[in-house]
Amino acid sequence: MIPPEKITSLKNPRVKQLVKLRDRRPRDEAGVFLVEGYRQIRRALEKTVALREVYFSREWFLGENEDTLLAEAEAAGATLFELSKDAFAKVAYRERPDGLLAVAPQWHLRFEDLKLGVAPFLLVVEAIEKPGNLGTILRSADAAGCDAVIVCDPVTDIFNPNVVRASTGVLFSVPLVVAESREVHTWLKDNGIRTAATTPHTDNLYTKTDLTGPLAVVMGSEQYGLSKFWMENSDVLVRIPMAGQADSLNVAMATIITLFEAVRQRT
Amino acid sequence: MIPPEKITSLKNPRVKQLVKLRDRRPRDEAGVFLVEGYRQIRRALEKTVALREVYFSREWFLGENEDTLLAEAEAAGATLFELSKDAFAKVAYRERPDGLLAVAPQWHLRFEDLKLGVAPFLLVVEAIEKPGNLGTILRSADAAGCDAVIVCDPVTDIFNPNVVRASTGVLFSVPLVVAESREVHTWLKDNGIRTAATTPHTDNLYTKTDLTGPLAVVMGSEQYGLSKFWMENSDVLVRIPMAGQADSLNVAMATIITLFEAVRQRT
Repeated sequence: MIPPEKITSLKNPRVKQLVKLRDRRPRDEAGVFLVEGYRQIRRALEKTVALREVYFSREWFLGENEDTLLAEAEAAGATLFELSKDAFAKVAYRERPDGLLAVAPQWHLRFEDLKLGVAPFLLVVEAIEKPGNLGTILRSADAAGCDAVIVCDPVTDIFNPNVVRASTGVLFSVPLVVAESREVHTWLKDNGIRTAATTPHTDNLYTKTDLTGPLAVVMGSEQYGLSKFWMENSDVLVRIPMAGQADSLNVAMATIITLFEAVRQRT
Repeated sequence: MIPPEKITSLKNPRVKQLVKLRDRRPRDEAGVFLVEGYRQIRRALEKTVALREVYFSREWFLGENEDTLLAEAEAAGATLFELSKDAFAKVAYRERPDGLLAVAPQWHLRFEDLKLGVAPFLLVVEAIEKPGNLGTILRSADAAGCDAVIVCDPVTDIFNPNVVRASTGVLFSVPLVVAESREVHTWLKDNGIRTAATTPHTDNLYTKTDLTGPLAVVMGSEQYGLSKFWMENSDVLVRIPMAGQADSLNVAMATIITLFEAVRQRT
């Protein structure tokens, strides 16, 4: 491989740009996002995400396979940049950097891009605020075998570095559509997909409600729960029984419980 | 109330001690632990945890009810200390402090302290490493109505500040016993409590396995999964079906799925 460009100055424009990409606007303007760390970059390559650039710093490496990873990334079309220890410390987003940071192109699926079978199994989440929750929810949808996740009226964007991290790479594989609630509702109706939304304000137990067939499980946001729109426009409301204190279940926990009950009923 | 002692020096012995209490050994030696933040302290008071000291700094307050909380804590026997902004910044453990930090006594339940009904429903967790996972697991056990949680061969201690935080106060209410695996196994046998342990290495689906009656759900650690001991000594092994990538479910997610399936079967 051609020796990569070396960057040592903290004022290098690429260093500055990497720091900017932690924020949503510059990320959206550039149409890219950050993928940090060996494991995440490995996952991105496995899922054939076309990494544009990989920044590395040997002084931060923790393992022995970094060079193999870099060679694979380069072979897949990424440009490599070698950073000094200080320069990498500046661009690293994680608390414990491992000397690897990539820039990947954003993508945006539309409903038309989704390939649905006879009985689609979807997850719809409203306005999730915490990137960590959104990442965990993506993992749950992956584990439960959801065909796609639809994010309504997003508060946190799906390319936030903490979503990438918390999703443990599922972001690179699970089909994900971002849209407005009304649009989502219309599309679900048009495709004959029933909606089951979780809320404490119903008597229907989620385990006693039919969750088979074409289904979209709908989850509200952390702070506000299910919105009025979905309360009024879902085909069925379901409740998870709670034994303990009121806030023992957060949205990520409620999501995985509901999805795996649907899996049980569907198999 | 008597005006509380004021602390402004960063070298004050109390300030130094609070910083030390972030680590396990000084915490265990003093037999206390830290409870930080309005919400956690409120929970501790509700659960009649006998807070010994509450340290506060008005300059960090975020709300309007802090004085009421302080008065309640003092009425319940806690000694108050007012800290300067800088002194509080030093003792605060959280990223965004809210000017409230309490010291509470540790407690240690033994098996004899547990009050069990005819069909106890327990959670046994092995050697959990990440405090955040242990906290989330405690929340799940609370939401599922477990009678107690038994922590085997702990790696993270239950009074770690991140366990306290992630448990959102459940630590103050859920009965929790720490013991060695063999001792736990003997006690469960003696009490006629069946063990169902989750592992990918079995064909028994968790949803097709009887989880009613006296039951202890057993979960392995993050890194190593279920230990040889519990693989060999559990009454039944159960598996959660996984559709996605191998590590989509972490131990906290697998725990909540299993517990809520047990709840479904038991009601």
